[in-house]
Amino acid sequence: MEDPTQHRPGSPVRSGIPEHGRIPKYYAVKARLSAMLEELGEGGLLPTERDLAERYEVSRETVRQALRELLLEGRLRRSGRGTVVAGPKLEQPLSLASYTEGVRRQGRRPGRHLIGLEQFPCPADLAPGIGAEPGEPVWHMERVLLADDERVGLESTYVRVARAPRLDSEFQPDSSFYGYLKERLGISFGDADEKLETVLATPREALLIGTPPALPMLLIHRFSRDTDGQPLERVRSLYRGDRFSFTTRLRPE
Amino acid sequence: MEDPTQHRPGSPVRSGIPEHGRIPKYYAVKARLSAMLEELGEGGLLPTERDLAERYEVSRETVRQALRELLLEGRLRRSGRGTVVAGPKLEQPLSLASYTEGVRRQGRRPGRHLIGLEQFPCPADLAPGIGAEPGEPVWHMERVLLADDERVGLESTYVRVARAPRLDSEFQPDSSFYGYLKERLGISFGDADEKLETVLATPREALLIGTPPALPMLLIHRFSRDTDGQPLERVRSLYRGDRFSFTTRLRPE
Repeated sequence: MEDPTQHRPGSPVRSGIPEHGRIPKYYAVKARLSAMLEELGEGGLLPTERDLAERYEVSRETVRQALRELLLEGRLRRSGRGTVVAGPKLEQPLSLASYTEGVRRQGRRPGRHLIGLEQFPCPADLAPGIGAEPGEPVWHMERVLLADDERVGLESTYVRVARAPRLDSEFQPDSSFYGYLKERLGISFGDADEKLETVLATPREALLIGTPPALPMLLIHRFSRDTDGQPLERVRSLYRGDRFSFTTRLRPE
Repeated sequence: MEDPTQHRPGSPVRSGIPEHGRIPKYYAVKARLSAMLEELGEGGLLPTERDLAERYEVSRETVRQALRELLLEGRLRRSGRGTVVAGPKLEQPLSLASYTEGVRRQGRRPGRHLIGLEQFPCPADLAPGIGAEPGEPVWHMERVLLADDERVGLESTYVRVARAPRLDSEFQPDSSFYGYLKERLGISFGDADEKLETVLATPREALLIGTPPALPMLLIHRFSRDTDGQPLERVRSLYRGDRFSFTTRLRPE
């Protein structure tokens, strides 16, 4: 096997296996596989585990560990044909624009699938973020996010019923909630605070999104206000970490 | 064991174990432990694995799986005394301000530890992002990021040597590079493009930051420009996913 510690200066450091410590065997295989993925290109079919184990003279379990990480990172994906090279992650802008617009801008077909829409009395900890009184009726709408019919995320929206009283009868749950607020109710977004973190998918989330459990996900908490500065909605959006990245432009404060 | 599927309406859905599918045993334990962590509060000492297994009438392996996820998510941490309830994640603003400023604003003590500072000829793929000609000398500076002396991240900065010729002799590597550019060289930041994603720590990164391998990390790619709009630097920052979240305020475009 060639020396996998070779590290081209200036290339992202994490792609190399430099001087420190012991090189785990699976990681040396992963480095070789990374190079193979680039040669194969998007959609290219990977050799079988058995072939790879023979080629690199390692156990199938070692190959499997390397493949597992490449799958978790979204560089490989399972398909009917076998394991293939995945396309680049979607780059979703962090912006007030909706999920729908963000995906469309990347030339993908956005979609949403309704899981549930229910009313409940607002709990005390949710109330300030959406401008509600504790106990007043609040909508919770939960939708699976789709890109080209692939399930890629899960979104929970909380808004006062008083803000959108006919949400259950007027709103098409596969369309943009922001479009509905604007066009039907004349409510526009002023600004929003977002917090991003990485979390593990829960079993329920993994089931709904169709991911392996414990896949690293990107979770975005949003608190938005209308153009009068009044609290409007709280949204929790969970995106597959292997399929999404988020972009932003920073300017001086 | 009490019913762990109880789901308070309006509470973040992911905290419950609602109707769908089978509930994995470890996840039911995790839900019980979550409630215990809230009661114990930050720094509270968790009972031993054996005690927990007895209390919940499950195997120690089941308890271990629940604890592993809570550790990866940063809700627990190992300490000399045992396993304790972790504090909240640091909330770092996505802004042109440096890491140093962001951590200081949260009342924590920022620090940086130099891993390496080297010159190399600029590779073609790095050149446009930093405004360099291919082959011209470029600095690569790699630093471990600290908060209250804890290693929390790893940062790689790439900048043309022509921009900061005496970086190796003039610059204190535990200080802010942005402060140095401004105060010593009169260079200010105009704007920057950032991309965030979640990745797994490589063995080398895990060693340098002192994390378990394959811990989910937040990776931020930054390309910044000076106030004349000229490309200035490329930065790759890797943050422990169990210790950091990132915040931003969104405004209409």
